[in-house]
Amino acid sequence: MRIAVLNGPNLNLLGTREPALYGRQTLADIEARLRDVARELNVEVELAQENGEGELVTRIQALRGRAQGALINAGAYSHTSLAIRDAFAAVDVPYVEVHLTNIFAREPERRHSTLAGGAVAVICGFGAIGYELALRGLVAKLSARG
Amino acid sequence: MRIAVLNGPNLNLLGTREPALYGRQTLADIEARLRDVARELNVEVELAQENGEGELVTRIQALRGRAQGALINAGAYSHTSLAIRDAFAAVDVPYVEVHLTNIFAREPERRHSTLAGGAVAVICGFGAIGYELALRGLVAKLSARG
Amino acid sequence: MRIAVLNGPNLNLLGTREPALYGRQTLADIEARLRDVARELNVEVELAQENGEGELVTRIQALRGRAQGALINAGAYSHTSLAIRDAFAAVDVPYVEVHLTNIFAREPERRHSTLAGGAVAVICGFGAIGYELALRGLVAKLSARG
Amino acid sequence: MRIAVLNGPNLNLLGTREPALYGRQTLADIEARLRDVARELNVEVELAQENGEGELVTRIQALRGRAQGALINAGAYSHTSLAIRDAFAAVDVPYVEVHLTNIFAREPERRHSTLAGGAVAVICGFGAIGYELALRGLVAKLSARG
Amino acid sequence: MRIAVLNGPNLNLLGTREPALYGRQTLADIEARLRDVARELNVEVELAQENGEGELVTRIQALRGRAQGALINAGAYSHTSLAIRDAFAAVDVPYVEVHLTNIFAREPERRHSTLAGGAVAVICGFGAIGYELALRGLVAKLSARG
Amino acid sequence: MRIAVLNGPNLNLLGTREPALYGRQTLADIEARLRDVARELNVEVELAQENGEGELVTRIQALRGRAQGALINAGAYSHTSLAIRDAFAAVDVPYVEVHLTNIFAREPERRHSTLAGGAVAVICGFGAIGYELALRGLVAKLSARG
Amino acid sequence: MRIAVLNGPNLNLLGTREPALYGRQTLADIEARLRDVARELNVEVELAQENGEGELVTRIQALRGRAQGALINAGAYSHTSLAIRDAFAAVDVPYVEVHLTNIFAREPERRHSTLAGGAVAVICGFGAIGYELALRGLVAKLSARG
Amino acid sequence: MRIAVLNGPNLNLLGTREPALYGRQTLADIEARLRDVARELNVEVELAQENGEGELVTRIQALRGRAQGALINAGAYSHTSLAIRDAFAAVDVPYVEVHLTNIFAREPERRHSTLAGGAVAVICGFGAIGYELALRGLVAKLSARG
Amino acid sequence: MRIAVLNGPNLNLLGTREPALYGRQTLADIEARLRDVARELNVEVELAQENGEGELVTRIQALRGRAQGALINAGAYSHTSLAIRDAFAAVDVPYVEVHLTNIFAREPERRHSTLAGGAVAVICGFGAIGYELALRGLVAKLSARG
Amino acid sequence: MRIAVLNGPNLNLLGTREPALYGRQTLADIEARLRDVARELNVEVELAQENGEGELVTRIQALRGRAQGALINAGAYSHTSLAIRDAFAAVDVPYVEVHLTNIFAREPERRHSTLAGGAVAVICGFGAIGYELALRGLVAKLSARG
Amino acid sequence: MRIAVLNGPNLNLLGTREPALYGRQTLADIEARLRDVARELNVEVELAQENGEGELVTRIQALRGRAQGALINAGAYSHTSLAIRDAFAAVDVPYVEVHLTNIFAREPERRHSTLAGGAVAVICGFGAIGYELALRGLVAKLSARG
Amino acid sequence: MRIAVLNGPNLNLLGTREPALYGRQTLADIEARLRDVARELNVEVELAQENGEGELVTRIQALRGRAQGALINAGAYSHTSLAIRDAFAAVDVPYVEVHLTNIFAREPERRHSTLAGGAVAVICGFGAIGYELALRGLVAKLSARG
Repeated sequence: MRIAVLNGPNLNLLGTREPALYGRQTLADIEARLRDVARELNVEVELAQENGEGELVTRIQALRGRAQGALINAGAYSHTSLAIRDAFAAVDVPYVEVHLTNIFAREPERRHSTLAGGAVAVICGFGAIGYELALRGLVAKLSARG
Repeated sequence: MRIAVLNGPNLNLLGTREPALYGRQTLADIEARLRDVARELNVEVELAQENGEGELVTRIQALRGRAQGALINAGAYSHTSLAIRDAFAAVDVPYVEVHLTNIFAREPERRHSTLAGGAVAVICGFGAIGYELALRGLVAKLSARG
Repeated sequence: MRIAVLNGPNLNLLGTREPALYGRQTLADIEARLRDVARELNVEVELAQENGEGELVTRIQALRGRAQGALINAGAYSHTSLAIRDAFAAVDVPYVEVHLTNIFAREPERRHSTLAGGAVAVICGFGAIGYELALRGLVAKLSARG
Repeated sequence: MRIAVLNGPNLNLLGTREPALYGRQTLADIEARLRDVARELNVEVELAQENGEGELVTRIQALRGRAQGALINAGAYSHTSLAIRDAFAAVDVPYVEVHLTNIFAREPERRHSTLAGGAVAVICGFGAIGYELALRGLVAKLSARG
Repeated sequence: MRIAVLNGPNLNLLGTREPALYGRQTLADIEARLRDVARELNVEVELAQENGEGELVTRIQALRGRAQGALINAGAYSHTSLAIRDAFAAVDVPYVEVHLTNIFAREPERRHSTLAGGAVAVICGFGAIGYELALRGLVAKLSARG
Repeated sequence: MRIAVLNGPNLNLLGTREPALYGRQTLADIEARLRDVARELNVEVELAQENGEGELVTRIQALRGRAQGALINAGAYSHTSLAIRDAFAAVDVPYVEVHLTNIFAREPERRHSTLAGGAVAVICGFGAIGYELALRGLVAKLSARG
Repeated sequence: MRIAVLNGPNLNLLGTREPALYGRQTLADIEARLRDVARELNVEVELAQENGEGELVTRIQALRGRAQGALINAGAYSHTSLAIRDAFAAVDVPYVEVHLTNIFAREPERRHSTLAGGAVAVICGFGAIGYELALRGLVAKLSARG
Repeated sequence: MRIAVLNGPNLNLLGTREPALYGRQTLADIEARLRDVARELNVEVELAQENGEGELVTRIQALRGRAQGALINAGAYSHTSLAIRDAFAAVDVPYVEVHLTNIFAREPERRHSTLAGGAVAVICGFGAIGYELALRGLVAKLSARG
Repeated sequence: MRIAVLNGPNLNLLGTREPALYGRQTLADIEARLRDVARELNVEVELAQENGEGELVTRIQALRGRAQGALINAGAYSHTSLAIRDAFAAVDVPYVEVHLTNIFAREPERRHSTLAGGAVAVICGFGAIGYELALRGLVAKLSARG
Repeated sequence: MRIAVLNGPNLNLLGTREPALYGRQTLADIEARLRDVARELNVEVELAQENGEGELVTRIQALRGRAQGALINAGAYSHTSLAIRDAFAAVDVPYVEVHLTNIFAREPERRHSTLAGGAVAVICGFGAIGYELALRGLVAKLSARG
Repeated sequence: MRIAVLNGPNLNLLGTREPALYGRQTLADIEARLRDVARELNVEVELAQENGEGELVTRIQALRGRAQGALINAGAYSHTSLAIRDAFAAVDVPYVEVHLTNIFAREPERRHSTLAGGAVAVICGFGAIGYELALRGLVAKLSARG
Repeated sequence: MRIAVLNGPNLNLLGTREPALYGRQTLADIEARLRDVARELNVEVELAQENGEGELVTRIQALRGRAQGALINAGAYSHTSLAIRDAFAAVDVPYVEVHLTNIFAREPERRHSTLAGGAVAVICGFGAIGYELALRGLVAKLSARG
């Protein structure tokens, strides 16, 4: 089983980006931890980060037939991007939406997620741990189905 | 460390309540699994279910000085109850909001959560597994702080 | 066939409660009339009134396997309670929403009913007669199906 | 006592019109049943169907001094027609609004009724039986007043 | 110069229609007075009343090349009818909107006029006198232009 | 009978103020014409113009016991001023709202009038003639009552 | 195969009606062209224009069993008429909504179409050619299904 | 004269509940002070606190014929509870709404009070003193009437 | 300690202004009573009334360094004036908003107060007594701080 | 004459992307058909697909002086992209908006098109045929002008 | 060339008014700097500050024929005053709107400017420097035109 | 001190892009002028233009540690892009938002700027001069702080 982990704009700056809000772990730290968990769960993870919405769409399109599920933290695009949601539907890959912060406790423009309506599950506010929980949850869900 | 797990109206009917939506596990099944995980994490869990908003408030008030955190699936009250959110603030207990279904993919009146704004984290759509993930996440978060 | 008749907050005061609006019949008068009609229709009625939303939820949960349908005048909770609507869905009991007054001709906050979306039928504005009409209508509907 | 029963656009097609939604009874079936009930209640009924809003207004104007009350299922005009509501006020004839389906459980544009605010009572969701219930209710209400 | 005076639904009932609101003058009274004023102003008036929106549209279409202006009290259609406004634009006849009552002091659904946006002028709240004022104003306006 | 005629901000500039919109007549021209009409109607007119909302309030307060009615073109304050409306209510003087342009055919912020809800009548779009029509209408209305 | 072509209010005035907006072709010109195209496509067209909403409903009802599809330009009724949409559903005739102008580039009240939600397809902005394109498209669609 | 003083959810925690916001006085402190003032004013006070909306309704119902007025701080229920407002209307007891904080300077969801529309008076932002002022004001008001 | 008491437009007419709504006490009566209470509380009061928003702003600016607090009943300006709120912030004088009527039980445009968000406390619906209660409350609050 | 045909995100997946919704034809199939039609109409077509909004903007910029018109199916960007609309305005190339599905019969977030306001014409719901119709319509429109 | 510089309510208090927000420079400091810049640019500046909306209107009216342009910081009136915007239009003087703070980063009620829609340009957030930049920009713009 | 100057979609076409709106200066002209001003102010400017949102994000990320401030005219992305605002926050670079036109006097969808909330200052409507003013203002602001 292969799970894609996609990160959107500005998440490449984690660790130095507003650390009081987003924490001090870098994306590399999170990815290292996810690889460990993936090994424990006996799945493969494939990781990518893009600043562009179109580039994220292209990444998702490439998952067709190669990944059974995905985690996505689309950053600022989460709140508006129908194209990303459409891409997942187009390749029929179930996804979990992850956010480091609890978006429902932030500014009004971050309290709505366009992606959430198409997601299998949503997890937010746990910081870097959230990715790990999402991976465990998604694998458990997909295993239950299979 | 003690973590309260509170469930709101109609969650006592899990297993027979609209199983296509909420799954076939009963609340007892979920609680049994949570006790196992709690043992693994070396924390205590305290479990309760109430159909009344006032009763949930009273349960939360009783956590002061006895619990370090809480999971809450307030069911239908999640979308409107300021009293429950106030109760957590009054006793200063951090909580994670849990939902079995992805509320953001449901009817419009379930897409807003009044509780989410006061929560540490939100997790929804994983079914019964979500409680376990929430417990792991909350314990990790509280341990990191302590 | 057993039909539950549930009344919400302040309906215990009928007869003395704003009689220009709600009429001079007491809840006991209405219940007496409903028992007569039930006898005529050869069904059983089971009657209850509660001031609390949670208590109404609990009453509805108790109908599972015992009642084939319900009439509910949830009073002020009609306009906001998702928990009551969820309870009916959870025990899979079809219900008719009844109001003494024509709620669509009253103050703006009473013109929307959260319960109506889950109801089989809605009847309002007939005063005390509305319960009787609702009982006749519901029994006819259920008989047609059976 | 004479009661008018008015039906609006597309109700002439009942029986073949989206039967899963509106049932298989024709308007003639409903009218036959209403005549029986009217006889039982010792009132006269006068029946009409119109596809045009203006024609319905003209029909209502003709009730002045001839009818003591009316049932109206104005179909699609229910949601927007102030002219029909004004016509009833102009001739001072109390009316009950009837719908075959529970309009509050349908598409958003059908959940608001402009007519309801001027009606004595509203009844919806009982299918063809609703007309009969409305007739009984209205006659009872008018008799109580007289 | 010929001025059309068009009245919409329920205005044929003036005099008996809610007289506390609309006054005791009949449409015939108003028309008689308008003919007198027209004679004084040396213009012709052409009068009509229709209950149907389509019939009003047809009346307006017939003004092309025959009338230099119009007064319209479209009654309930004033608040929603784009078709009537379009008809005036199609035949290029300037019109004054007249209402007996001050629509801005009535129920919310009467406070917006769809017709007003296409009108030369609006006059409301003067009761029957309003038609006369509108006729004088329109003739003065048209004379100033010619 | 004495009728006050009050004009609000920027109406002192009539004649040179955006003449394509407001016409070429000055406020003095309008006042001269109003005095003629007043003489014809055998009433007195009292005229004032103020740029300040508070000054208009003070002017209206001074009408108590001295004027039987008023015309007001409150200019830009028409759309927001509750204080002016309150002043008329406080001294119990009926007023007609006048606008040179058809405010319902202008920018969205000019399509709502706060004053209209308290007015006896509203007249707009006739240009300078509108004042004269309003004076005739108001005097007729007040005479009919007296 | 028979296709109905229905036109709503004021479309009978095409050619002289605001030609800068709607063009100089008359409805007769458009119908002549449609008959040619119909002959080419080997289908029959049946053409009608009505100023009244009720009359359009009646026309649509008459299509049952006689037409396999329809084009409709309901003019001003497009933006509000649920009755027309219901009529098509009642007789189960698929329809294409046509507009001469691009309604989405016009005044706000024309940017929403109530009919569009029930249509097979929508085409607007091509002027008179739009009818021809719509006919070709609808015939192709229906042929593909058959 | 007897005045009821009712407190809603979480007000039992006053003193320890977010003291920066709600102050350090306990509900017992406030009640003691109210008893002193009541003695001074020669009235009786009857005090209660409930976490449940239904329980507050029941408390209010019990005031019929026993209390001439009430103070209520319904806490979080103030913003949504129609049932509490209905209960006061049902027993015809005038009430003053009290809040410790200035709710109009807090989060958006606390700036609207459903209770306020039925209240005699509203007082908020004075902290614990507000209860005393409300008691003095209500007794003065009731005395003036009596 | 000096407390300013400011009154806005039309409050100079108290006693004769809509007495059913605002009572029969004049502003002089209220001021006399306030002076008595001030003497009892050992503070000075400084009283003013203005019809203009700018004049109220100027009055408030003059309080800098001279008053420790203020009561304001800004009348109609309460619902819209940011300038008055800004003036209090600019001179750093805490204020209590007072209204004679319960503004939350009046017309929709009076249910929002722009001033309330900057106030220390709000009191409304007690009639003339409200000023006295506000003075007592404000002095108590300021004394507690000092 | 050269016409550009631009497709946005996820349209490269046509044929396998949710075929129940978007059909089984691939973008290559559509393009082949368009080339045939172009040949018949004696125009050139230039085809492109991009997943990125910026890339679509760049493609449109490149049309200046090279294309006389364009068809665009901007997919998910249709509903939000002002940048694409601006690009067409910047190079002054008229465009037709095309959608495979009837976007007005889909989820609420797809019922508004930001592009439509700047388009010459809009066509949606015809599936793959829609492109062909749009090409024919646009060429006819441009030829009529030239 | 003469440029007017107008300041609205509370700007006379600059320097002591919430200095953390508005800075420590007084209006006199700003005016001194503007005079220097004006000398450099070879234009005259005319400076005024008013607390009243009507007074600002009167000031603007006085610019006719005397000033070629204006800077205005209307303070709190910026967000609501149509009268000030109308005054500029009436005397046909182009103006630049200036704010010390970035109003779009402040409270919601300050994020909309009624004046902006009529302005030539808007500049905000630069503190006292903003006036100087606005003067340079306006003079450059007017010079380019002349 | 280094200041980045970033331009968004379609700004590369300045000079030929809707010149009546955006002027005849090219981006190269503006950049040349900015370099001159930069030299005068003794700062460096770094200039870039991108059509893609992701590319702008990447450009902004690259400013970390290299630029002390930025000017951005994000064109159409200004109204929606949270990602660009987040990027500036992530690298902690203060920015001034610049627009050639006065966006508050344009179409409704351009009157809101998502970027403005995070900006130091906003300047719009001055055409090409606006960049120069923004540069002067930003340098002054940053110098004042340093």
